[in-house]
Amino acid sequence: MSTVIAFITTSLDGYVAGPNDRVGAGLGDGGEALHDWMFGGGGAPDPVDRAYMDEIFGSAGAWIVGRTMHDLAEGWGDDPGFGVPMFVVTHREHETVAKGDTTFDFVTTGIDDALDRARTAAGGKNVLAMGGADLLRQYLGAGVVEELRLTIAPLLLGGGKRLFDGTESTDIAFERTGVVDSPRATHIRYRVVR
Amino acid sequence: MSTVIAFITTSLDGYVAGPNDRVGAGLGDGGEALHDWMFGGGGAPDPVDRAYMDEIFGSAGAWIVGRTMHDLAEGWGDDPGFGVPMFVVTHREHETVAKGDTTFDFVTTGIDDALDRARTAAGGKNVLAMGGADLLRQYLGAGVVEELRLTIAPLLLGGGKRLFDGTESTDIAFERTGVVDSPRATHIRYRVVR
Repeated sequence: MSTVIAFITTSLDGYVAGPNDRVGAGLGDGGEALHDWMFGGGGAPDPVDRAYMDEIFGSAGAWIVGRTMHDLAEGWGDDPGFGVPMFVVTHREHETVAKGDTTFDFVTTGIDDALDRARTAAGGKNVLAMGGADLLRQYLGAGVVEELRLTIAPLLLGGGKRLFDGTESTDIAFERTGVVDSPRATHIRYRVVR
Repeated sequence: MSTVIAFITTSLDGYVAGPNDRVGAGLGDGGEALHDWMFGGGGAPDPVDRAYMDEIFGSAGAWIVGRTMHDLAEGWGDDPGFGVPMFVVTHREHETVAKGDTTFDFVTTGIDDALDRARTAAGGKNVLAMGGADLLRQYLGAGVVEELRLTIAPLLLGGGKRLFDGTESTDIAFERTGVVDSPRATHIRYRVVR
């Protein structure tokens, strides 16, 4: 059964990107360290983190990403390696891009349509929304996110983009269904309850 | 060996109190739910949370609290039950208050002096700073906090007082040293590294 999952890493002070996010520094000043748990931060990833990431990525039948995040990440380069269809929510038309095993479809008809298309493409596997924060808030607010996979990285960014910016509805409830942790990250799994 | 510990519960959106905190609703609108893990939220506390709380409170030789928090909590009533000396950091003089097994000393000579007095009173046990957020940021900024015990409650408050408000130094690093979790809370233990 396909589950719609919001998957994101936040700093201890609640930022999913540091200040001044821009092309070439898509996660802003200091923000790359958010993903040290994924990429090892100069060393090898912890086996716990590696297994967590493999599980998440292996469960994905399609991803949804906001246009800003896609552009800041420069489309993840020439070989993004996601291996499943990617749907980019945008206001600006863009032709479909195929790079290696990954195809990016640009959806200009709204978040619901992007989700419908991602569900169909996922073929029973999970649909994962990776951000940015604004897109995740839209999907959470729309009541379609069934699970939040929140990773807390042990650092402060001091500014940037917050996952929750104080404007969101507070009538969303969360049930923690599991925690996995390593020295680099605490991965909390929440079921989203309306 | 005595350790200086900041101990606080935050919502998923980073608030340690909801909007409109006031006497009679010291944790603001909706904020009492932050402490459902401690008090059961209408039921019995989870054994995991109960054990965590017992461990924390049992390790404390003295507590430090900000005057605003003390006043909003109305001094925790007639029988606060902390059982160890409490030091209240304040700009306004107040005579020492003894209630049941708990004494409140009001310290007008700054956070360093409050810490010195708490250390002495703790007699080798831990000194715990419970908040508010502003006081914890001051102690973290002063480099005297050795451990952060952060509890994340699975709810959104949408506004209020944030533990980290974006103004703090980001040159504090954290090492996660342990995680304990229940359905109501994820308790993360960090060593603070300068």
